[in-house]
Amino acid sequence: MRTSQYLLSTVKETPADAEIISHKLMLRAGMVRRLGSGMFSYLPTGVRVLRKVEQIVREEMNKAGAIEVLLPMVQPAELWQESGRWDTMDAELLRFKDRHQRDYVLGPTHEEVITDLVRREITSYKQLPLNLYQIQTKFRDERRPRFGVMRAREFLMKDAYSFHLGQASLQQTYDAMYSAYCNIFNRLGLDYRPVQADSGAIGGSVSHEFHVLAESGEDAIAFSDTSDYAANIEMAEALAPTGDKPTPSQALREVATPSAGSVSDVAALLQVANTRIAKTLFVLAEADEQGKQQLVALVLRGDHELNELKAEKLAGVASPLQFATDEQIRALCHAGPGSVGPVGLNIKIIADRSAAHLADFIVGANKEGYHFNGVNWERDISDYQIADIRNIVAGDPSPCGFGHIVIKRGIEVGHIFQLGEKYSKALKAGVLNEEGKHQIMTMGCYGVGVSRIVAAAIEQNHDDNGIIWPDAIAPFQVALIPMNMHKSVRIAEVTEQLYQQLTAAGIDVLFDDRRERPGVMFADMELIGVPHSIVIGERNLDNQQVEYKNRRSGEKAMLDIASVVTDIQQKITR
Amino acid sequence: MRTSQYLLSTVKETPADAEIISHKLMLRAGMVRRLGSGMFSYLPTGVRVLRKVEQIVREEMNKAGAIEVLLPMVQPAELWQESGRWDTMDAELLRFKDRHQRDYVLGPTHEEVITDLVRREITSYKQLPLNLYQIQTKFRDERRPRFGVMRAREFLMKDAYSFHLGQASLQQTYDAMYSAYCNIFNRLGLDYRPVQADSGAIGGSVSHEFHVLAESGEDAIAFSDTSDYAANIEMAEALAPTGDKPTPSQALREVATPSAGSVSDVAALLQVANTRIAKTLFVLAEADEQGKQQLVALVLRGDHELNELKAEKLAGVASPLQFATDEQIRALCHAGPGSVGPVGLNIKIIADRSAAHLADFIVGANKEGYHFNGVNWERDISDYQIADIRNIVAGDPSPCGFGHIVIKRGIEVGHIFQLGEKYSKALKAGVLNEEGKHQIMTMGCYGVGVSRIVAAAIEQNHDDNGIIWPDAIAPFQVALIPMNMHKSVRIAEVTEQLYQQLTAAGIDVLFDDRRERPGVMFADMELIGVPHSIVIGERNLDNQQVEYKNRRSGEKAMLDIASVVTDIQQKITR
Repeated sequence: MRTSQYLLSTVKETPADAEIISHKLMLRAGMVRRLGSGMFSYLPTGVRVLRKVEQIVREEMNKAGAIEVLLPMVQPAELWQESGRWDTMDAELLRFKDRHQRDYVLGPTHEEVITDLVRREITSYKQLPLNLYQIQTKFRDERRPRFGVMRAREFLMKDAYSFHLGQASLQQTYDAMYSAYCNIFNRLGLDYRPVQADSGAIGGSVSHEFHVLAESGEDAIAFSDTSDYAANIEMAEALAPTGDKPTPSQALREVATPSAGSVSDVAALLQVANTRIAKTLFVLAEADEQGKQQLVALVLRGDHELNELKAEKLAGVASPLQFATDEQIRALCHAGPGSVGPVGLNIKIIADRSAAHLADFIVGANKEGYHFNGVNWERDISDYQIADIRNIVAGDPSPCGFGHIVIKRGIEVGHIFQLGEKYSKALKAGVLNEEGKHQIMTMGCYGVGVSRIVAAAIEQNHDDNGIIWPDAIAPFQVALIPMNMHKSVRIAEVTEQLYQQLTAAGIDVLFDDRRERPGVMFADMELIGVPHSIVIGERNLDNQQVEYKNRRSGEKAMLDIASVVTDIQQKITR
Repeated sequence: MRTSQYLLSTVKETPADAEIISHKLMLRAGMVRRLGSGMFSYLPTGVRVLRKVEQIVREEMNKAGAIEVLLPMVQPAELWQESGRWDTMDAELLRFKDRHQRDYVLGPTHEEVITDLVRREITSYKQLPLNLYQIQTKFRDERRPRFGVMRAREFLMKDAYSFHLGQASLQQTYDAMYSAYCNIFNRLGLDYRPVQADSGAIGGSVSHEFHVLAESGEDAIAFSDTSDYAANIEMAEALAPTGDKPTPSQALREVATPSAGSVSDVAALLQVANTRIAKTLFVLAEADEQGKQQLVALVLRGDHELNELKAEKLAGVASPLQFATDEQIRALCHAGPGSVGPVGLNIKIIADRSAAHLADFIVGANKEGYHFNGVNWERDISDYQIADIRNIVAGDPSPCGFGHIVIKRGIEVGHIFQLGEKYSKALKAGVLNEEGKHQIMTMGCYGVGVSRIVAAAIEQNHDDNGIIWPDAIAPFQVALIPMNMHKSVRIAEVTEQLYQQLTAAGIDVLFDDRRERPGVMFADMELIGVPHSIVIGERNLDNQQVEYKNRRSGEKAMLDIASVVTDIQQKITR
């Protein structure tokens, strides 16, 4: 491609409305333009990257035995009513009527459509397992679209759905998808991790997320510093402290803590570590038969944070988690949230494993401006349960049993689920099994955020000058930058010759044939992140050489014109 | 691909609800399934064809210098309000609101979005010309979706839009697109014709359609039997008869034509050829200043048909064309439609060129049950205009001046338009020209119906046994059909070896490894239209041979196992 015949559309100024670096750089590098809230037009440079990601995903899915289909974006409401999601999903599911006033949705995902398709096509266990995928546009009417294509409303996704007779077959395909995803992210050239994850609203039990590691990531991931263990901290188990609980040695006593509302206030006032303090949070219990909801007290060590996902999964706790209001807390404890604690409460009390391991600790006294010191479980709080309800933190022992936890941030770009029978049961999707009996199919589903990968790759690969693409998904692998080509026939000829040779070798080349100053060309090629640059200048031509520069390492080298193609081929990572 | 690991989904029975052969065969061959009215899920065999068509279109667009972009399917209403189409388009434009009650449309086409994008990106004539395309899903809420994917609501389209400073540049890109389209349809292996066309609701002047010729085509196309001339009969010019008009020789006389309402009735009754009769049709005129619409009389030779598109373009005629009601005709002529004519009418009268060439002809007398014979222009009807308002018919002289007209039927699969300034003016999309002045850009647009091509290819290429794919878009190029492989180790081994060799050579092979009777395998491979079949049987293996069969020609041949790959490579049309 020659820049004169291309739509480069680079922008010098950093766009004001972009919050994260990938969004800024995708705008500046001429990859996307905003059409409306959460909707982006892809310019040529953006499309080139998107198509390369798409093709790698497609090839690896095919290799793993998945078969490509293409399902409509517009879906009849009836299927969503059958699965129940017409009622359970909020406004994120965009609903509309056609000219005949029939109800439809814009597909945010395709479990219903594929399950309907498969229940009509597949009748016998002999046709299973089956793994169908598509690469297709999705629409989710996010309340607050942001971060550019990272959290857009319209986006490109690869979604796959597998169908099985039983768990063993599902596990086999799940493992194959796990490997395929590793192959995909390896080929994309990204630093990623598969992590254990919660399966959330999609349903099912076992689930892994694939994260591109980047400081700007929305998710925190817990790694073992010794083993392969990695989990989203949403679901990483925080183990109970090892060893026996310290023996109680103090009597319960009330201490005045005027105007000390937070753990750190109390710790400072009483001159103790915040690990000696237990904080108490109140959430709503599941409704009883009359529809009333009592409170539940959640007790955590002062230095720990509540893990809401773990808490809402506990029996007796309302899901999704709802925190009690100040009024509800005062009605129960006769004190404000800064002075409350579990002692003397007649409600369900759940202590985090670490909090439950404390002795002689400090809690709010349920009396405004007072705390209890020397508190001990059993003696002072007899009726309580122990559960893992906190976020794992750096330094915690890894739940895998090896090493300690390190926390890193990641961007979720893939997610695989063992769905089980959630959708197949609702849509009565079954086959005849070996005994000739009707059996509901077991399902898995496997997603990759194709357009999101583009942004995540930039979050992970950039510097002050712009994007640094991995070779596999670079819009162009090589930039040809001639110095004053329009004044030197020799430079024009050599550049043209190199362009022809490199292109003939199947390399994606951007030949910057604009009448621009060298500085402008260098800046643009760095901004759009071309991994390999070749500068054609008069002086080097005297030695039959051109200058090579590597975008990532900054490595410079002189290349003989005669061997440029083979030299470049060796430098490109396949 | 092995059938055991594929979703073949062929169906023996002809589906009852499919009207045309391509729809029937796409269902029977397991290519698509209906999800809802005008919405189809593509099964693996369908996707394979669709992707091949898509890739050929992409490659030829790239070669022609067009640059790929990707625009959102969901579009803000504001742009459609700006162009005016929010108000002028009917319910085919699907409108909906998002969670914040903002108005959107599901994109049926992208003139507005691309013009908005380009007016923001392009500021100088130096950046022109620019030709941007995308391959993307469209939605048109057709009142009556039918014929399977041929006239679906959701469909895959390649749409390109070019931007220019002036007509000369537009013409250049238009010509390049014309050539690119020829290359596309040549590579697809289809019998097609570019034809002059009307530009319809999209706007603009010059326009060509690309038609795949098939008896089932919805459009009639007029060809010259001598030259390259081809035009949609919607717009093929019917020339005036050559030679002088015959001299009038008869006096005007009233003849009784009781209960003869049609041209053929009158011709039979009066024992004349229908070419001696002129029929008169009444349509509404453009509204006058008071909003009233008079009638206009259109006079055609008895054997000719009105061309509505030509008529509605005439000055003074309401567009779109509206026929007068029986009541309106009776109020004007004091007779029913079977007895009306232009003699004595005080309204605008437009005679078709052929009708205007008549002398001593017959028309209704505006008196129930009577006609005039011996009618002559000027003498009997003094105030009239002459225009081309009929459909061209087979045998007419070609408007190109060479040869005569032959009519064939076609399926429109591509359409290129010189849009002019219709959208760029409405959206004020301009650039600074060489003189530094703001100038509105000139536009072209170029569409290919990617999913429609799949159906059109089948309409053109099928027999009683199923589809006959051209090599370039066949879901599989070669079918390997082993006879009783599950009983013969030798057959299994040879088939496996051929499968590996052919696949390694980059050929798309379907290895039918099912435990099915040979007849079932043959029928399925013919139904899904695999162009080349290789049958592996015991007897031929004794001679180190396999049997080859060509789906289209029926040609059979024995191939040496050792040379199968090179033999097949020679048979596949690239």
